[in-house]
Amino acid sequence: MAGKVFFSVSMSLDGFIAPESPEELMGQQWMELQQWVFPLRFFRENAGLGEGGEEGRENDIARATFERTGASVMGKRMFDAGEKAWPEDAPFHTPVFVLTHESREPWKRLGGTTFHFINDGIESALDQARSVAGDRDIRIAGGGTAILEYLNAGLIDEFSIALSPVLFGSGIRLFEGIDASRVALEQISAEPGKRATHLTYAVRAR
Amino acid sequence: MAGKVFFSVSMSLDGFIAPESPEELMGQQWMELQQWVFPLRFFRENAGLGEGGEEGRENDIARATFERTGASVMGKRMFDAGEKAWPEDAPFHTPVFVLTHESREPWKRLGGTTFHFINDGIESALDQARSVAGDRDIRIAGGGTAILEYLNAGLIDEFSIALSPVLFGSGIRLFEGIDASRVALEQISAEPGKRATHLTYAVRAR
Repeated sequence: MAGKVFFSVSMSLDGFIAPESPEELMGQQWMELQQWVFPLRFFRENAGLGEGGEEGRENDIARATFERTGASVMGKRMFDAGEKAWPEDAPFHTPVFVLTHESREPWKRLGGTTFHFINDGIESALDQARSVAGDRDIRIAGGGTAILEYLNAGLIDEFSIALSPVLFGSGIRLFEGIDASRVALEQISAEPGKRATHLTYAVRAR
Repeated sequence: MAGKVFFSVSMSLDGFIAPESPEELMGQQWMELQQWVFPLRFFRENAGLGEGGEEGRENDIARATFERTGASVMGKRMFDAGEKAWPEDAPFHTPVFVLTHESREPWKRLGGTTFHFINDGIESALDQARSVAGDRDIRIAGGGTAILEYLNAGLIDEFSIALSPVLFGSGIRLFEGIDASRVALEQISAEPGKRATHLTYAVRAR
């Protein structure tokens, strides 16, 4: 039984999920975007920051997103930024399929994360992710370009957005270039959190 | 005791509140944007469509937004579209101050709506709205340009968004041109509804 294909991102109220350049990632607004995550017990554990942290519904949401994921697919831009930033024990702990135009041997990290470099398209990457995910789900990890390609291709089953109370004014928009004539949404749930609102949608064809 | 200055709009998940041209207002996505409103008892009453309709929390939200409003301020584009579309008994039932560059005598409609045409700026329009609103609140009714001018001028106290499960891909973005270096948000509430998520934010200076 194949799992679902999903993505899960934090988005500003004006629709942005990342700055124009990775160097801006530590700016004030970008920290506010992720503010709901940092205090969580699961985040601290998974990032190797040690014990402690908040429990409760938002911690459960973050943990469930991680635990449902049997494999991830990621764009090259996200990988390039992460390759410099992730610790040796990269925070995925599953196979990760990187969309690229290059050939590169798999890159194995501590803790179960292996990056595979795929250069024959998004469907191939998804097929390979499926073949290792078992009955768990496949997360399109990002960035915005990769998510949009899968959305417009009709390959996403559902997605979650942590909508943060912050405005960016510029950056990379989650839905820039969406084919609105093909993608319809059904709202599955909306849960208020302490620092963000957690929204889940199923994707339907129009 | 002066009331608050607020706005309240329906927004698509990708950040749009209106189509590029008013002629597109009846398209499928635009109807989906407002889908949460049409079945409500309050909407039917206020639009003169007769008795009946849904009650419950979303009906209360729509009614409370109307009842708190002692005066409205509106941009010229919204007025121009509405002038052709509103019934004689226009749906405001309070004074409405229209931002324009023209001189025009007040236009009195049935049911307590009088449009006043203001051509000396957004602060003047707000002052005049305050002078008639009593202890009720002042609604910046729209469109997007008028809301953004007030937001960037630091003149909005709080706002509500009915976030609808629909993607537009194009149109008029609520926050296009926001001065993110000045405007910070505090989330006041988030309530799941049947067809939209109801979000309320207070505006703070950065």
